[in-house]
Amino acid sequence: MASTISWADQAVRDELIALKHHQPFVYGLTNYIAANLSANALLAVGAAPAIGAALDWPSRFAAGANALWINGAALMSSGPDTLQTAARSAHEAGRPWVLDPVAFGAGSPEYDAAIRSLLPFKPTAIRGNASELIALAGGEGGKGVETTARSDDALPIVQRLAKTTGAIVAVSGPVDYITDGDHVLATRGGDARLTQVTGAGCTLGALIAALLANTKSPLQAVGAAHAIYKVAAERAAHARGTGSFAVAFLDELSLLDPAN
Amino acid sequence: MASTISWADQAVRDELIALKHHQPFVYGLTNYIAANLSANALLAVGAAPAIGAALDWPSRFAAGANALWINGAALMSSGPDTLQTAARSAHEAGRPWVLDPVAFGAGSPEYDAAIRSLLPFKPTAIRGNASELIALAGGEGGKGVETTARSDDALPIVQRLAKTTGAIVAVSGPVDYITDGDHVLATRGGDARLTQVTGAGCTLGALIAALLANTKSPLQAVGAAHAIYKVAAERAAHARGTGSFAVAFLDELSLLDPAN
Amino acid sequence: MASTISWADQAVRDELIALKHHQPFVYGLTNYIAANLSANALLAVGAAPAIGAALDWPSRFAAGANALWINGAALMSSGPDTLQTAARSAHEAGRPWVLDPVAFGAGSPEYDAAIRSLLPFKPTAIRGNASELIALAGGEGGKGVETTARSDDALPIVQRLAKTTGAIVAVSGPVDYITDGDHVLATRGGDARLTQVTGAGCTLGALIAALLANTKSPLQAVGAAHAIYKVAAERAAHARGTGSFAVAFLDELSLLDPAN
Repeated sequence: MASTISWADQAVRDELIALKHHQPFVYGLTNYIAANLSANALLAVGAAPAIGAALDWPSRFAAGANALWINGAALMSSGPDTLQTAARSAHEAGRPWVLDPVAFGAGSPEYDAAIRSLLPFKPTAIRGNASELIALAGGEGGKGVETTARSDDALPIVQRLAKTTGAIVAVSGPVDYITDGDHVLATRGGDARLTQVTGAGCTLGALIAALLANTKSPLQAVGAAHAIYKVAAERAAHARGTGSFAVAFLDELSLLDPAN
Repeated sequence: MASTISWADQAVRDELIALKHHQPFVYGLTNYIAANLSANALLAVGAAPAIGAALDWPSRFAAGANALWINGAALMSSGPDTLQTAARSAHEAGRPWVLDPVAFGAGSPEYDAAIRSLLPFKPTAIRGNASELIALAGGEGGKGVETTARSDDALPIVQRLAKTTGAIVAVSGPVDYITDGDHVLATRGGDARLTQVTGAGCTLGALIAALLANTKSPLQAVGAAHAIYKVAAERAAHARGTGSFAVAFLDELSLLDPAN
Repeated sequence: MASTISWADQAVRDELIALKHHQPFVYGLTNYIAANLSANALLAVGAAPAIGAALDWPSRFAAGANALWINGAALMSSGPDTLQTAARSAHEAGRPWVLDPVAFGAGSPEYDAAIRSLLPFKPTAIRGNASELIALAGGEGGKGVETTARSDDALPIVQRLAKTTGAIVAVSGPVDYITDGDHVLATRGGDARLTQVTGAGCTLGALIAALLANTKSPLQAVGAAHAIYKVAAERAAHARGTGSFAVAFLDELSLLDPAN
C-alpha cells in the first residue's frame, strides 16, 4: 500500500528547510526547451543551478556540484559520451543524480540506447511518465514525449525497475508514485495544466536533484520534491490560461515557506 | 483579390476542431530562443510537440510525427545534413512540413545555401516575413531577423514563390497573405507587439504545422493558423508591456474555443 | 570616488534615446538558458537582436551587426573557435563588443582558458559578478554561476582589470560599479529578485551591447545600461513572486520612456 505524502507533512517541509539552508549547487544536462523553467524553479526554491555542457563542465561540475540531473533530451545539444561523463563523474564523486528518460520508448532506438548506457552509473533516482518508465523497464512506449499509459497501471513495473536499478523510481500522473521497490509514496493533487507547460516534467527532475543534495532519506526527498511541485501547482490554479499558469507556478514555488 | 479569413469564419474553427480532436504529434527543428514559446503554443492549442535533434529523432520523429516544422535557425544547434534528414524523412513518409527561412537574405551565404538545400524536399508550406521571402525568391534581404520590406509589396513575389516551389507561402506583416500561387487569403488585426516577442514568428510556423497535420485543405489550414495566431494576439491586447503580452498570448491560445 | 548614475540622469535617457532612434542590430552568442530573456529585453528597449552560431553567422553577423555580446556559456552550444571568430570579426570590423565571463573561476580550467582566449580581441566592455571578475583578474572564484564575493571588495581589482584589458569593466552586486580604470560610476537600487531570475545577469550583457552600439562614451553607455536595468527592476517590485517578477521586468523595460 502507498503512503500519501503532501505539503501538509512536516517531513516534506523539513526537506525544503534543509535545501534552503544548504543552497546546494545543482548541475543539469537538459534540453534547451526546459532549461529556463528548470533553472528558474531551482532558483525559486533556493538552489544554485548551472546547466549545460560547456567544455569540461560535465566532468567538473558533475563532480563538484551537490547534485546532478540528466534529462535525456540533453542529447539534442550533446553526444552520449558527454552524458556518460557527467553520470560517471557524479557516481564516482558520490553525488546524487537523477535520470529523466524523457521520450524513452517513443520510437528512437539510438536515443533509447544512449539513455540505457547511463544506467551502469547508478542514478539515485529515475523519474518519468508511465509510458517512459514502462518502456525503460522493457515494455511499450508512448507518443513523442506525451504519455499514453497511466501511473496506476505502471506501479508494479516501476517497483520492479527500482529493484533492478537500485534507484528511487517516480512515475508522474494524476497520482504520482515514488518507490524504492518496497515502500511506495503517493502524491495527489496538482493541476492538470502542468501537462500543458513544456518542460514542467523536466523541471520536476531538477527539483528532485535539489532535494536529494542534502537529504538523509532519498525516498523522502524524492517524495518531498513531488509534494512541493504539486502544492505550487495547486496554488497557481487561479491562473487564466496556460501561459500565466507557468508564471504563477514559479511564483508559488518562490513563496513556499516551510514554516507556514 | 485576396479573401479575408478570420476567427469569425466557421472554416477556421473547423480546422481547430480537427486539431483538438486528433491531438497531432508535431515535431520541430527550431532555434533555442523560440523553442519554449513554440512548444507552449502547441500545447495550448492541443497538439503534442517534440523539439530537437537528439540522435535519431530527425529521421524517426520526422517520419513518425503527424507534421514537422523546420525553422532555419535550428542550424545554430544542428548541421545542414540534420535538417535535410528531417525534411527528407517527412517528405518520403508523406508528412506535411513547414519551412521557416528566418533571417534568410540577411547576409550569411552559407546559411542561405543550407536553407535552399531543403527546397527539393518539397515543403508543404513556407512562412516568413517579407524580407526573407523576397530574398528566398531571389531579391534583396533584411536586417538580421527583422524585416525591412512590407507584406503588400511582397505579395506578387510570394505568389511566384508558391508556384515555383509548390508550397503554400505565407508572408507576415500588418496584413498576412497566404497563397498557393492562385488563391490569396488575407488575415488582418493581431497586435504589433507580436514583433516585440522573440520567437513569435517562429511559433506561427509551429502552429501552421499543427494545423496541417489533419486538414483536407492545406491553404485553408495555413490560413486558419494565421487567424488563430491573430485572434489570440488581439485578445492579449490588455497586457501592460511586452513581457505580459507574451504570457497573455499563450493564455488566449489555450482558451480559444471553436464552439464560441 | 564613484559618481552615482541613475535613470534620473538626462545622460542616461540620452543613451536610450539614441538606441531607440538607431534600433541597432545586436548580435549575441549566449547560452540557451538566457537567450530568450535577453532577446526579449533587447526587443523591449528597441534593439533588433539575433542570437546563435548558425553556420557563418559568427563571422558575418558579428562584423555586420552594430554591436556584439558574448556570454561565455555560449560554449555549451559552440566551440571556443566559434567564439573567437565572432570576437575577431567584431574587433576587426570596429564593432563594440561585450564579454560576459559567466561562471569564470568556478572550477572548470578548460572553460576558463577558452574565455581568456577572447581577451586579445579587445572587448569594449566586460561585465560579471564579483567572483567572476576577481577570478578573471587572477584571484579565486565562486560557486557555479553564483557569486560568493561582494562588488565593493572587488572594486580595486576591477579597476586594475580595466587598465590591463582596456575595457570598461562592470561588476554587479547590491551596488554595481562601472569603471574604465580611472573613473568609477555606481548604480544603486534594483531588486534582489534579479538574482533569482535565470539569465538576468546575461541579459544585462545584452543591454550593454545595445547601448554601446551608438554611443559617444562607452563608459556612459555601460553605466546607462545598468541604470536602465535597475530602474526596470524597481518598477517590477510589485510582482508576487519570481515568475511574475521576470515578466514585469520585461514589461517595465518595454515601457521605459526617456521623455518621462
